[in-house]
Amino acid sequence: MKNNTFEEIGKVISDAERILIFPHVNMDGDALGSSAALCSALRRRGKECYILIEDRIPANLAFLDRGFCTADQNMIKKQDLSICVDCGDPSRFEKRRKKFDQADITVCIDHHGTTAPYCDYNYIDKDAAAAGELIYKLLLAMDTEIDAEIGEAIFAAITTDTGNFQYSNTTAESHLIAAALYEAGTDWGKVSTELYENNRIERILIENTALGTMSTVAGGRGVIAYVTQNMLGETGAVMDETEHVVEKLRSIAGVEIAAFLKETEDGRVKVSLRSKSSADVAVIAAELGGGGHIRAAGCTLSCSLSEAFDLLKGKITDSLS
Amino acid sequence: MKNNTFEEIGKVISDAERILIFPHVNMDGDALGSSAALCSALRRRGKECYILIEDRIPANLAFLDRGFCTADQNMIKKQDLSICVDCGDPSRFEKRRKKFDQADITVCIDHHGTTAPYCDYNYIDKDAAAAGELIYKLLLAMDTEIDAEIGEAIFAAITTDTGNFQYSNTTAESHLIAAALYEAGTDWGKVSTELYENNRIERILIENTALGTMSTVAGGRGVIAYVTQNMLGETGAVMDETEHVVEKLRSIAGVEIAAFLKETEDGRVKVSLRSKSSADVAVIAAELGGGGHIRAAGCTLSCSLSEAFDLLKGKITDSLS
Repeated sequence: MKNNTFEEIGKVISDAERILIFPHVNMDGDALGSSAALCSALRRRGKECYILIEDRIPANLAFLDRGFCTADQNMIKKQDLSICVDCGDPSRFEKRRKKFDQADITVCIDHHGTTAPYCDYNYIDKDAAAAGELIYKLLLAMDTEIDAEIGEAIFAAITTDTGNFQYSNTTAESHLIAAALYEAGTDWGKVSTELYENNRIERILIENTALGTMSTVAGGRGVIAYVTQNMLGETGAVMDETEHVVEKLRSIAGVEIAAFLKETEDGRVKVSLRSKSSADVAVIAAELGGGGHIRAAGCTLSCSLSEAFDLLKGKITDSLS
Repeated sequence: MKNNTFEEIGKVISDAERILIFPHVNMDGDALGSSAALCSALRRRGKECYILIEDRIPANLAFLDRGFCTADQNMIKKQDLSICVDCGDPSRFEKRRKKFDQADITVCIDHHGTTAPYCDYNYIDKDAAAAGELIYKLLLAMDTEIDAEIGEAIFAAITTDTGNFQYSNTTAESHLIAAALYEAGTDWGKVSTELYENNRIERILIENTALGTMSTVAGGRGVIAYVTQNMLGETGAVMDETEHVVEKLRSIAGVEIAAFLKETEDGRVKVSLRSKSSADVAVIAAELGGGGHIRAAGCTLSCSLSEAFDLLKGKITDSLS
């Protein structure tokens, strides 16, 4: 199915009065940043517009919500238009799906290659590094003046989804848009402080504790670490706060495969796998009933932590031999 | 004193046959990346060209040295041209100063605002985020085709000196150059892996140990941590490997001032100070005989670690009250 043009999508948005924007659950910087940029622009045009959410806003993204977000599905009784941003599969906004479908017209702006067109109007571009890039282009097609507020939201979207312009999904266009946002007065030093200098002290403590468990395997080409429910209790941290541990493990010189084992509340073990440059961790994950990509994959094991450790040690060693 | 133009500098470079490039001591990604891009381009033009260094290349920058670097001052007996890159004050290449001065013509390409023109030809632009941006413009002025090898070196220079495009020194031009490098085939995923996924395991261990010492002060608005010689001995790490600890401390939500205390080999205490958004740590450092900038400053104290801790605790509390 062909994408609509930004001009077509801009036209239906212009014609609507009451608009709800739907970022995906477990919102990240791209989902919320893109939604905030769009909401800001639409309110400036006099639209009644909200970002409808179903879960909490992460602390480091709270600065993006300038009164845009609501979890109240009746904030607008009946919207003319629903726009899902950085997602296109209703499973990504399951608890808001009925409300989404209630609109006269639905629109999808997404960059996930796995998204099938679900809406009346769709713009899905898997080559875009971030949905924020697509929202930027949509706003230009709508003759929107990009001010510092919109610029900050789009910069947050792009910089988080490109790993600060380091991931290989980053394109020339990511940088060209960032350059244009700079001209619009975006203060990226400020955005960066909000995004990255807002760690709970409990995050530092749990990262420290988890990294303290690391063991190298396969002659230093593999590394495994873990976190237990007990460690979470002792540090006061939540499991989400261990999200960067596996990348830290992979950052060790000589390490090709990193595995991070998370003991779940129901006594299973969630495994995150990363490879650096040659190994395929999707294969390991698939063998253990999981899946993912070559460089990032995962699975869930119904066994004890020490059994999971031994299992992964064997798999990693085999993969690297 | 006025800068020369890139065209003038390009002309003297074109006229030379034997060229030595001088990055500053304690070379960083910008110093070595800029030097490597220039050396690569000049060798392609048939010049006899080396990067003359006086200290070791950090492991994460080794990929930039494609046979360019030498510590042998006699590699070229008598050079026509000396070019200092990312520095302009001879104190930044003290052990190579005589060799530098021995050239018929000297050139400086730098972006430090404190650099006074020392060379026959100078291009000093304090508004450039990285010397790499200036080298890029110089190479364009010399009609150099930017290939992937030069692109990687310039990308490494810019991304390290801008904190991956997050620091407030980043400009639209930083992004525009990155976009142009992408078109030249630069693989920034590869560069990023080299730069940031090359940590010795000892670095992880010492970061962990140092972060484990942190105490909050001033009701959580300040945080202090330390590293001892003993900790270095136990982890096998070197002091340089604690360089990111103070930024990690500052990244804690609510923290405005972070202090990191390093016990030196001769029993003194080096203090690194960072502030997040409002406090002026240069004032604290100056009161203790040091100096620096509003957001990053330091000093060295001749006292015990516990005395230094108490002193800083008092200063931080005063500064935040």
